[in-house]
Amino acid sequence: MEQVISSIKVITHGQGFTDITYSVKKFITENNFANGILILNVLHTSCSLTLNENADPNVLYDLNKYIESIVPYKSYKDLNIQPQKVSYEHYQEGEDDMPAHIKTALTNNSLSLSFQNEKLIIGVWQAIYLWEHRSEKKERSVNIHVIGEKINRNYN
Amino acid sequence: MEQVISSIKVITHGQGFTDITYSVKKFITENNFANGILILNVLHTSCSLTLNENADPNVLYDLNKYIESIVPYKSYKDLNIQPQKVSYEHYQEGEDDMPAHIKTALTNNSLSLSFQNEKLIIGVWQAIYLWEHRSEKKERSVNIHVIGEKINRNYN
Amino acid sequence: MEQVISSIKVITHGQGFTDITYSVKKFITENNFANGILILNVLHTSCSLTLNENADPNVLYDLNKYIESIVPYKSYKDLNIQPQKVSYEHYQEGEDDMPAHIKTALTNNSLSLSFQNEKLIIGVWQAIYLWEHRSEKKERSVNIHVIGEKINRNYN
Repeated sequence: MEQVISSIKVITHGQGFTDITYSVKKFITENNFANGILILNVLHTSCSLTLNENADPNVLYDLNKYIESIVPYKSYKDLNIQPQKVSYEHYQEGEDDMPAHIKTALTNNSLSLSFQNEKLIIGVWQAIYLWEHRSEKKERSVNIHVIGEKINRNYN
Repeated sequence: MEQVISSIKVITHGQGFTDITYSVKKFITENNFANGILILNVLHTSCSLTLNENADPNVLYDLNKYIESIVPYKSYKDLNIQPQKVSYEHYQEGEDDMPAHIKTALTNNSLSLSFQNEKLIIGVWQAIYLWEHRSEKKERSVNIHVIGEKINRNYN
Repeated sequence: MEQVISSIKVITHGQGFTDITYSVKKFITENNFANGILILNVLHTSCSLTLNENADPNVLYDLNKYIESIVPYKSYKDLNIQPQKVSYEHYQEGEDDMPAHIKTALTNNSLSLSFQNEKLIIGVWQAIYLWEHRSEKKERSVNIHVIGEKINRNYN
């Protein structure tokens, strides 16, 4: 077993999804891994890592709209039966910041995946996304750590 | 350290939970693993993997009812203070499909677990569930990848 | 590659966050690991593990308030457009118990992390929290499993 650790940089431009599946697959093959596992971690508290549909872009549109609908900008008190227009206690970094922390808590920022015969094992309709929850341009860093067996070149 | 990769097939019949704990435990012992980690991934975007209570079936009933209550079939706009009856943009695969993608995003489809002395380390009240979010019968595939040390038969 | 398995005990006093980052870091260094991965699992179904902001305590306050707002004590039916005051089916273990199971399902109870050169790889603003969802004092157990390479003392 060997291990390689690196990071994937992602530039985001507001709420939405960036497909990082290709970068993950490339990391496996460039490092000559055959079989193993990989751990992905996004090193921020206002964006997520998620596995979801790779086919219809409306799925991603609806995911964004849905999470905005349950995590409002103003405050959690809006969700109560008698809504009150007040702000979050943590409002100093912008009205999109506390909602972004909440969206992160409701989704994932750590993913574990598997690969076999040099191929990432995900479903045919699955992609790995960085899901940005902040409004402004951001540079995001995803840590990638692979543990596995390298390709035996003698048999290739 | 050695690794074994396989998959667990699960037939589901509508929204609900299938306990796959036994299949996971059996995989560890059948492959003679003593100590290690395991990575589970469900290869679909409309069902989840989740660790939750294994005792009272009403917990599972309430989990289903709760997630249906916050992810309605019609649309996220129903959740607003002035609800509007409109549909999701992604509606072409059935009215249960987009809600299923959202429920997947709000829960988990990748789990990492640990085992020691041939025993899966989960709480006494925990079970590993495949949580189906679609209405119709489905065949689901859960990838299971173990890395660990095998039992040393010389000492057994 | 070597592995070490242990557990971290956490005493909680009602809903809220306990920062376990230091315990995780200490486990890596005390076991002389240089590079590897670690798997954390909380062995209970009514609390979570989550990575979120470590700076402003109001973020944690808002996270708690938010999740209470979408997972009410009475029942999921409160969230409907015409709310009905009824209870969960699973109510026998206290009015905070079923909400706690739901909050666990909406967040995480399994986390995978990475470390390199004896240092845990998390963002500068990230901490690892045990997020308690029950009201009363609890003793919680977090399983920690490290696989990696130990420090080569010959070169230190």
